[in-house]
Amino acid sequence: MATVPLIEYAQASDEVKVVFDDIKRTRNIDDVNNFWKALANHPDTLKRTWEAIREVMQPGTIDSATKEMLYIAVSIANSCDYCIHTHTASAFAKGMTSAQYQELLAVVAMAQQTNALAIGMQVPVDPQFLVD
Amino acid sequence: MATVPLIEYAQASDEVKVVFDDIKRTRNIDDVNNFWKALANHPDTLKRTWEAIREVMQPGTIDSATKEMLYIAVSIANSCDYCIHTHTASAFAKGMTSAQYQELLAVVAMAQQTNALAIGMQVPVDPQFLVD
Amino acid sequence: MATVPLIEYAQASDEVKVVFDDIKRTRNIDDVNNFWKALANHPDTLKRTWEAIREVMQPGTIDSATKEMLYIAVSIANSCDYCIHTHTASAFAKGMTSAQYQELLAVVAMAQQTNALAIGMQVPVDPQFLVD
Amino acid sequence: MATVPLIEYAQASDEVKVVFDDIKRTRNIDDVNNFWKALANHPDTLKRTWEAIREVMQPGTIDSATKEMLYIAVSIANSCDYCIHTHTASAFAKGMTSAQYQELLAVVAMAQQTNALAIGMQVPVDPQFLVD
Amino acid sequence: MATVPLIEYAQASDEVKVVFDDIKRTRNIDDVNNFWKALANHPDTLKRTWEAIREVMQPGTIDSATKEMLYIAVSIANSCDYCIHTHTASAFAKGMTSAQYQELLAVVAMAQQTNALAIGMQVPVDPQFLVD
Amino acid sequence: MATVPLIEYAQASDEVKVVFDDIKRTRNIDDVNNFWKALANHPDTLKRTWEAIREVMQPGTIDSATKEMLYIAVSIANSCDYCIHTHTASAFAKGMTSAQYQELLAVVAMAQQTNALAIGMQVPVDPQFLVD
Repeated sequence: MATVPLIEYAQASDEVKVVFDDIKRTRNIDDVNNFWKALANHPDTLKRTWEAIREVMQPGTIDSATKEMLYIAVSIANSCDYCIHTHTASAFAKGMTSAQYQELLAVVAMAQQTNALAIGMQVPVDPQFLVD
Repeated sequence: MATVPLIEYAQASDEVKVVFDDIKRTRNIDDVNNFWKALANHPDTLKRTWEAIREVMQPGTIDSATKEMLYIAVSIANSCDYCIHTHTASAFAKGMTSAQYQELLAVVAMAQQTNALAIGMQVPVDPQFLVD
Repeated sequence: MATVPLIEYAQASDEVKVVFDDIKRTRNIDDVNNFWKALANHPDTLKRTWEAIREVMQPGTIDSATKEMLYIAVSIANSCDYCIHTHTASAFAKGMTSAQYQELLAVVAMAQQTNALAIGMQVPVDPQFLVD
Repeated sequence: MATVPLIEYAQASDEVKVVFDDIKRTRNIDDVNNFWKALANHPDTLKRTWEAIREVMQPGTIDSATKEMLYIAVSIANSCDYCIHTHTASAFAKGMTSAQYQELLAVVAMAQQTNALAIGMQVPVDPQFLVD
Repeated sequence: MATVPLIEYAQASDEVKVVFDDIKRTRNIDDVNNFWKALANHPDTLKRTWEAIREVMQPGTIDSATKEMLYIAVSIANSCDYCIHTHTASAFAKGMTSAQYQELLAVVAMAQQTNALAIGMQVPVDPQFLVD
Repeated sequence: MATVPLIEYAQASDEVKVVFDDIKRTRNIDDVNNFWKALANHPDTLKRTWEAIREVMQPGTIDSATKEMLYIAVSIANSCDYCIHTHTASAFAKGMTSAQYQELLAVVAMAQQTNALAIGMQVPVDPQFLVD
């Protein structure tokens, strides 16, 4: 189904195994998910992507569950089925409640709607919203 | 610049004024922004959109600032200049800090990147992420 | 502002002039709009695009104004400012009324909203909607 | 497959049943489709979305079949598989002919093509298309 | 699964057969793929689309494999599963190497990421990048 | 105009200056462009983004000009005005010819068109394009 083979740990090169091990340790899971097995076809991209995501998705001034919710919002806009499934699961695992999930969907849908109206009518930005 | 005239309060019909008044009261502002002045060309859409946004964007299990951050994420994905400017301003007004804004941008950019990789390689969803 | 120079009729090659003349005659206008002046940098693309648009946009089982309305719907989804301005003007010129324009915007915004919900929840297609 | 359970009528709460009943009566169908069963996880969103769609999609100055065609155009741009299947079926049910469907697809594809060219060359909007 | 029946060669009209024959001859294949069988429901669109693609995708100042790689980039951005699968296969058939494919994915993902940042911060275009 | 201030070299922190210096040295330019001045509001994102782009965009099995062309293709699909202007300029600077640029635009527009048709008709992927 994928355009590339999924690389399992047993077949992986040493540099891939290092990344897989770090993912498993950081996330406390037994096996990495398919995304990483697909990325393992290009160890440089695997390493760069994992290091970036580990840095960006760690809790900061925005907590982890909220970061996952932002991820879901983008994934819906991109119609990325894989990303929607995995990040919805991650958001729940990190503490998003069902009620929050429903509010998230409502906000994303609302944003899509008003985005379309603002773009469709080509509404000019009010001066007070322009920063210098 | 817009495809429709912007309707100012003084020229508005009574049913538009009712909505404008409610927006101003709810948000504690002196004048509605251009989006609503553009929507005022169609009072039904103005009323329906305002009532929906008032309901959806009120603080719930997700706080107001976070809802605005989700709005920004969608607006970036849609390349809606107007929406980006206004909702970034709203998010700051509702308490988003500069540090949070920077993390938000980093998460959205990260999501765009991994969305592209997952879509590009057509990665199949792992069974554990499929709910029945 | 454009990434290519806009080619005016006086500077155009003979093969470009043939297309410009056909556009002006077909649309009964004095000058082609900027889109065609930009396309004139590549006469093959200019000719192919014009011939396709002339064929596709002629009245058929869907009338011309409705075709322009479909064009607007797509242009909003793509956030194409140029296309929104020109096709909104074309739709009005071909008979779209202000009331229809407002309903069009409402439908497009509604579609964006429910698209987001269906994508976000990954709703499976009901069997009755699947054609064999 | 969905990220939420699909709520059948028999399991639904009273407020959900009221909406389901109205959908079934308005559309003269025996059961609501999966979209509504998914939305039923959040009765407020279910009610608000149904009331908005009932208002927006009723025949007005644009007839119902054309409104469904606009819906299809947006759903294609968003790559919403669910929406494409259901609204194509709805458009046919409301009178869209096969010939119109084919013309619709041709217009949407044409719009995508010229949108890309206009965006790619960053063509400036001709002054005559700018409304004040 | 498709919204239209797939038209096989044996059932095709004469004008469809002419196009199918040209596709098979040009690409040196035994049967056209599903995209063309779906398009065959509208012979005008089939003919116009095939003639355009034959002209645009022939090797020119950009070679065929690179053109397919550009096609993949766009198809990822549109989340077009069908297009991703077929054009990835075509790119490999025309000489794209596995290493090039991996670099392509990395560039597309990178572009998505910086696009989001530039759009999100509404960065103004530097004067030196504006052509007159 | 931007949602953040643009940070000039003279006002930059030391860690920002290190990145700016590397950009200027790598690209042999006197000043970084606005994108980097905007990113400088978040030194971590600035550093991570620059290091990723430097690695991804270096000539590999795909040459630099082609990588910029892929960047343009994605930027058009995202309607990112800033990205289109800067990467079109970069592509020309790295050797893209005017003829290649015109072919690039034609391929991107063609891809948008057939993407819409494949998505609109929900064409099922032919078995031969599915890798195991």
